[in-house]
Amino acid sequence: MQLLEERIRNEGKILPGNIVKIDGFLNHRVDTSLLRAMAKEFGKHFDLTGLTAVLTVEASGIALATICAEEYHVPMLFAKKAKSDNIEGGLYQSEIYSYTYKKKVTLLLSKEWMKAGDRILIIDDFLANGEALRGLIELVEQAGAECVGIGVAVEKGFQPGGARIRAEGYDLMSLAIIDGADENGFRFRKQ
Amino acid sequence: MQLLEERIRNEGKILPGNIVKIDGFLNHRVDTSLLRAMAKEFGKHFDLTGLTAVLTVEASGIALATICAEEYHVPMLFAKKAKSDNIEGGLYQSEIYSYTYKKKVTLLLSKEWMKAGDRILIIDDFLANGEALRGLIELVEQAGAECVGIGVAVEKGFQPGGARIRAEGYDLMSLAIIDGADENGFRFRKQ
Repeated sequence: MQLLEERIRNEGKILPGNIVKIDGFLNHRVDTSLLRAMAKEFGKHFDLTGLTAVLTVEASGIALATICAEEYHVPMLFAKKAKSDNIEGGLYQSEIYSYTYKKKVTLLLSKEWMKAGDRILIIDDFLANGEALRGLIELVEQAGAECVGIGVAVEKGFQPGGARIRAEGYDLMSLAIIDGADENGFRFRKQ
Repeated sequence: MQLLEERIRNEGKILPGNIVKIDGFLNHRVDTSLLRAMAKEFGKHFDLTGLTAVLTVEASGIALATICAEEYHVPMLFAKKAKSDNIEGGLYQSEIYSYTYKKKVTLLLSKEWMKAGDRILIIDDFLANGEALRGLIELVEQAGAECVGIGVAVEKGFQPGGARIRAEGYDLMSLAIIDGADENGFRFRKQ
């Protein structure tokens, strides 16, 4: 997605540890008009017939997933990380490793909100090692629901998550895939 | 806001510990059309002239703040909880007590995204003890920015946060104020 690549090129930075910092428009200060354009782009690619919900995980995926859900006229579900007092009853659960926080985290989703036969589009802002997406896919499988696709804003193509998810046969669309950066700036994968 | 009160009445529950559970449309499964209606309602109340940004805190405030920011054509900022590796440089910081997680939490906002003279609308989904809002107000003050108002979806009127924030002179608008519940269901404050 050219608009997104331009924003990354103009405003993004790569920090030590391969951290891609684009928090001026995606995940600290958020440009909702860019999110809306992303939602429309996903809508062109995925078959959203009979879509039941958009699923993401807190926290930074929520903004994009909210705009996507409104765009496709379905509810937005977000999995929670770890146990809080505010979720009762039956839960789908998936344990992932968080590279951001360097510890195991359990993703939780109430069984009330996803059922067998549901058609779910998974959305997240970032894809690097793919742990968050793996956890979300597991929640969808536990429900007996169908994952109609996975939409990601920015994939770090030099980390293994994207390749693994595609190898498993999922329809993964990343709007920008950063393969690296050098003195000339970011290198994007041609799609 | 009548629409919101009806949804709470029809779908909400009060759990032990005065936890108001409305996670079928506000903060686990999210109804974006309801959020859009809320954003318009805030827009009627607050003077949004020259608004610079909508500010919230992760995680569950993000959905509503995103729709508000798009509605008012300004960026959405979300404060992060605790230190992650993905935020560099100067930070506004405010320490709050999280009743959900029963521990102290530090709210962080990069100084890049809020400056003196900015006009900020604070948005959150829930108001109970008011710790999250107190922290957000502190961040705005640290920046030398102006808080033009505070918009909350659901206030638990039987907890002290709302009264304290109003006593401090802030223009706080809660779209539904739950004063309690009994065998006849939720009691809402007349506004």
